[in-house]
Amino acid sequence: MTLDKILEQIQNAESIVILTHQTPDGDAIGSSLAMKLALENMGKSPDVIVPEVPEVYNFLPGREDIKAESDVKQYELAISVDCATEMRIDGKEYFENAKHTIVIDHHGSNTMYGDFNYVNPVSPACCDILAGIFDYYDINITKDIGTCLLTGIITDTGGFKYPATTAETFEFAAELLRKGVNVSEIYKRTMDTMSRATFELTKRVMDRMEILEDGKVAFTYITKKDVNEVNAKPGDHEGLVNIGRNLSGVQVSIFIRQNEEDKDEYRVSMRTNGDVNASDICLMFGGGGHPRAAGATVEGTIEEVKEKLMKEIKKVI
Amino acid sequence: MTLDKILEQIQNAESIVILTHQTPDGDAIGSSLAMKLALENMGKSPDVIVPEVPEVYNFLPGREDIKAESDVKQYELAISVDCATEMRIDGKEYFENAKHTIVIDHHGSNTMYGDFNYVNPVSPACCDILAGIFDYYDINITKDIGTCLLTGIITDTGGFKYPATTAETFEFAAELLRKGVNVSEIYKRTMDTMSRATFELTKRVMDRMEILEDGKVAFTYITKKDVNEVNAKPGDHEGLVNIGRNLSGVQVSIFIRQNEEDKDEYRVSMRTNGDVNASDICLMFGGGGHPRAAGATVEGTIEEVKEKLMKEIKKVI
Repeated sequence: MTLDKILEQIQNAESIVILTHQTPDGDAIGSSLAMKLALENMGKSPDVIVPEVPEVYNFLPGREDIKAESDVKQYELAISVDCATEMRIDGKEYFENAKHTIVIDHHGSNTMYGDFNYVNPVSPACCDILAGIFDYYDINITKDIGTCLLTGIITDTGGFKYPATTAETFEFAAELLRKGVNVSEIYKRTMDTMSRATFELTKRVMDRMEILEDGKVAFTYITKKDVNEVNAKPGDHEGLVNIGRNLSGVQVSIFIRQNEEDKDEYRVSMRTNGDVNASDICLMFGGGGHPRAAGATVEGTIEEVKEKLMKEIKKVI
Repeated sequence: MTLDKILEQIQNAESIVILTHQTPDGDAIGSSLAMKLALENMGKSPDVIVPEVPEVYNFLPGREDIKAESDVKQYELAISVDCATEMRIDGKEYFENAKHTIVIDHHGSNTMYGDFNYVNPVSPACCDILAGIFDYYDINITKDIGTCLLTGIITDTGGFKYPATTAETFEFAAELLRKGVNVSEIYKRTMDTMSRATFELTKRVMDRMEILEDGKVAFTYITKKDVNEVNAKPGDHEGLVNIGRNLSGVQVSIFIRQNEEDKDEYRVSMRTNGDVNASDICLMFGGGGHPRAAGATVEGTIEEVKEKLMKEIKKVI
């Protein structure tokens, strides 16, 4: 099966690079570092290249070894984790130039862009898939590997709350807790610590919140000017889309943020409750993701982006 | 042991009333209803008296049978769940008048005010204690009982995130998920649904947030006028204290709300990170709770209450 072929690739490769998606989240960083630590236990010395790691993940084991770039022109093997398309890989040149490529992911919109692809769209997190792979390879899940894996699981399940969370997810958390992994600390650091900048962004996002379509759609935004004014760092806007999502009666929550100052282009984050498929809508704008959490980049002013999105959303609510 | 004596009391009682604390939360309502359903499985017909149940718990099995009051003057047995002191029981006259009394609780500040007391302060939730008791009594935890128990566990652990959460807590969640309990739905309904009133209160709480003592203390408030203006219902202020608690660097978060309009008296909610014991501080004002989550009622204007609290807090941070 694919996992055996992937193992063979790993064992034969002289040089390995691990890559993940742009604006990496907990599952992206957790998967990258868990894979690195596991490969090290197999006697390999992989590079992890992530150009910009949000500060919040600095506590993760192996974080200090993450590189922003590399002198190696051609790796023998590139492993992409938690990334749906080749375009979305941060540092995709390393993937393009590699002799062999492996893709491990849990996005339903994954385009199977590797030589070997192991994609499970019902898995709640890429880290959850890795836990299964490590088990299959008989790799001991150490406290450090467990800390990385649980970070991805906690952040991608919203703290065990999204419907993709399974009984096995809870049992895995119990197992890791017994191994000494500090579940509460991971939760606190990744989900429950709000920077002052995020606090200020939250106030603006709430003040600007528009409730549309009879309470079914929540829309809000931040501009690059906001980001600069509150001195926000990458990751400080994470979770802002959930404010609208959690509002009673809301089926679709939209949060858009400007990519560059004085440029009419916005990164859209969409979260849905119930039956609306966020991934389907975002795919229409060249984006993608999961049924209840997806994203895209849309050109236009705030009002124009809103109108473009609402035109599609109105068809399905 | 105590549990055997409690079982004997239950088996012998002709009439039983189940009571819990004022301004009941998920653990209070979940415990009350789980106990009711379990006793019904034992052939008993207990009353559950809770004068005011927050709307959010309307989905719980057995909710429709909760009474606001009762014609029964004297129950043979009163069972208090999740309530630290007799004073805090909502409907304490039923407890006072009962022939025999049982207290089941997980508050460290519990005063052991029953004839039989089963109190475990390291338990993450009263519902967690009940799960153990039902197991000891060989009571089958049905999907309905499980739904009530998990509601208390999820709300009192902040969704499995507080340090009191154990490996057994996760394993119990896995077991309930396998029984068909909808973990994600409970989470969504109890933790992630924000009413429009709460949304408006949140905006005010954030706008008024004061960061004191070099970023270590967060203080904010709402008045009865706020509550009236946004048409808030009981429970709509739940969780507002966590906004300050989650701010990076904050050790003590204080949220106070006015009890009655034109009266200088405030209900204090305190949450702490790290080493500050919230229960110790609140005990000085006649309140109590857990080391990291406690409350009290303090007289004075907003500024006066703040000063009284800060005087004590400054001694320990």
